[in-house]
Amino acid sequence: MRTVFWEDNQVKMIDQRILPGRFEIVSFKDHASVARAIKDMVVRGAPAIGAAAAFGLALAGYESTASSNSELFDDLQAASDTLKAARPTAVNLAWAVDRMTTKISLALKVAGTDDVDATRQAFLEEAQRIADEDVEINKRMAEHGAALINDGDTIIHHCNTGALATVDWGTALGVIHTAHQQGKKIHVLVDETRPRLQGARLTAWELEQYGIPYEIISDNMSGYFLKAGKAQKVFFGADRVTANGDVANKIGTYMLSLAAHDNGVPAYSVVPTSTVDLSLAHGDLIPIEERDPEEVLGLEFHGERVAPIEAEARNIAFDVTPNRLITGIVTENGVVYPPFEVNLRKAVLGK
Amino acid sequence: MRTVFWEDNQVKMIDQRILPGRFEIVSFKDHASVARAIKDMVVRGAPAIGAAAAFGLALAGYESTASSNSELFDDLQAASDTLKAARPTAVNLAWAVDRMTTKISLALKVAGTDDVDATRQAFLEEAQRIADEDVEINKRMAEHGAALINDGDTIIHHCNTGALATVDWGTALGVIHTAHQQGKKIHVLVDETRPRLQGARLTAWELEQYGIPYEIISDNMSGYFLKAGKAQKVFFGADRVTANGDVANKIGTYMLSLAAHDNGVPAYSVVPTSTVDLSLAHGDLIPIEERDPEEVLGLEFHGERVAPIEAEARNIAFDVTPNRLITGIVTENGVVYPPFEVNLRKAVLGK
Repeated sequence: MRTVFWEDNQVKMIDQRILPGRFEIVSFKDHASVARAIKDMVVRGAPAIGAAAAFGLALAGYESTASSNSELFDDLQAASDTLKAARPTAVNLAWAVDRMTTKISLALKVAGTDDVDATRQAFLEEAQRIADEDVEINKRMAEHGAALINDGDTIIHHCNTGALATVDWGTALGVIHTAHQQGKKIHVLVDETRPRLQGARLTAWELEQYGIPYEIISDNMSGYFLKAGKAQKVFFGADRVTANGDVANKIGTYMLSLAAHDNGVPAYSVVPTSTVDLSLAHGDLIPIEERDPEEVLGLEFHGERVAPIEAEARNIAFDVTPNRLITGIVTENGVVYPPFEVNLRKAVLGK
Repeated sequence: MRTVFWEDNQVKMIDQRILPGRFEIVSFKDHASVARAIKDMVVRGAPAIGAAAAFGLALAGYESTASSNSELFDDLQAASDTLKAARPTAVNLAWAVDRMTTKISLALKVAGTDDVDATRQAFLEEAQRIADEDVEINKRMAEHGAALINDGDTIIHHCNTGALATVDWGTALGVIHTAHQQGKKIHVLVDETRPRLQGARLTAWELEQYGIPYEIISDNMSGYFLKAGKAQKVFFGADRVTANGDVANKIGTYMLSLAAHDNGVPAYSVVPTSTVDLSLAHGDLIPIEERDPEEVLGLEFHGERVAPIEAEARNIAFDVTPNRLITGIVTENGVVYPPFEVNLRKAVLGK
């Protein structure tokens, strides 16, 4: 089953907020609800929210009562803005929405028609294409990345980058899944990924299904295992990679990469080229989302709230890992190594 | 009120497992219960468990039915072993127990008496002395450390090192408390300190009482604040410092110190000299405690367990921060700077 898909003129998603306790599919009938679902993290993971936004835009086409393509494009522009504003850090949201609008408006210019229903249909088909391509791309990334993993490796993995973070198969976790399928003996140290615990909840749940051995650790334990020589690789995804190879990813990636670097352990970011934002020179230019403090404060242990009731918190959702700490960036076009300024551009644009 | 104290022939402790939700004093009538309380973390923090073990040993004296000092010392030896085994990493446990036994057996040799009741009384008095000295020492450390803090500093603090981690006043948090009392405007970023959340539970609770402004962050957010130039100092305690200045402390200290170092932010460990173990040349020789995985897995959010029910976990309680990442070690005898091999010895032995 895909993480996000189109069925019965609705966008459907696995509700990732309630896993692993419950598995439920939720349906959305308008693009505003899809935007809210992205914001509330019903769906998360850069490639998955790209596909969700694409389907959301297709939904906006059917919501629109426009009788000309020009009116339809006005409505879709407003819907694009709503969808893009749902979460600021991952570039895939904007990438998916812009790809659809650009590609279809160009096709319409060439065709010179004003068939609004055909345009609506074209948006849906393009969303479907984005979703289908995501799966293909992930499988190609996984092949490239799996070659980096040795039999017997213990791998530290951050956040969730599996099937749930994409339409299917995953980025970094897809690499691990493929290496496992190739018969390599792998052990995964799953960091829990505070505050939303995507590691302990989602990655652990996926690894259970794949039969890959793992143990959960708290985020702050990675340094111990790296220093003790008990982990041979570090893998994570990314929400946006800038032209110089700086990696914005789930909060904690920077400290994890630092600890890997301090112990000579390679750290790989696995991303489709749609996550690479060549328009930004370096990571300090990436907008960093800050979320509701309750995600930090709401923790319970044995049914009791952990923090004092008066406590305040900060909830920074992402950090930027400077390129000097990144060993390689795995894309569908191969593994990119430094100098990233030159080699990332080649991997994305083919030149 | 002190964290651990003697009253009505019992050892009493603030139950730190249930704070900040409830404040309760628990009482112990025998040394085995004290050892269990240390193991279960009713009391925690290197200096506090040192004092708790001291009182536990005094209790063992009164438990013993010995009619000669030689028999009494046999019983106390067994009790010492039980108390020392409660937690392996903090050296203060062994330090307190050994100090009592050595000092009193020496005094007895000098006196040449065999008054068992007087010996029992001597053990209790020495335990009381250890507890009283702890508070004095902490106040002296706090004065030395507060001089390192500037008006307007934002300080990242790890674990709990306050009054609750000691008999009273605290180590690193004592420094912050004193700087606050001196009128310095301070903001504390309290990392929650997974897995047992001593930051979010205990440090936040203490800061509420002292009226010091703070915000809770998850452990993996420290790197963001350090990289963004939003924190000027990092402070933590230690469970054992070796002769070369390597610092064993609550898990996460190594990654936090790495992030401080990567951004040129000073990181200070605040410890009484009783936490310095000159018998160990470096940190790799320190035994590292691994605790029950349930402390990692038992997390709940909105009443639901976070991890899959089948999940396993690792629970490493401490890590070792190499001396190269430590800016200074604050002791009751002043702030010790590199080369730690030379200067720590001077601070501890006065030579």
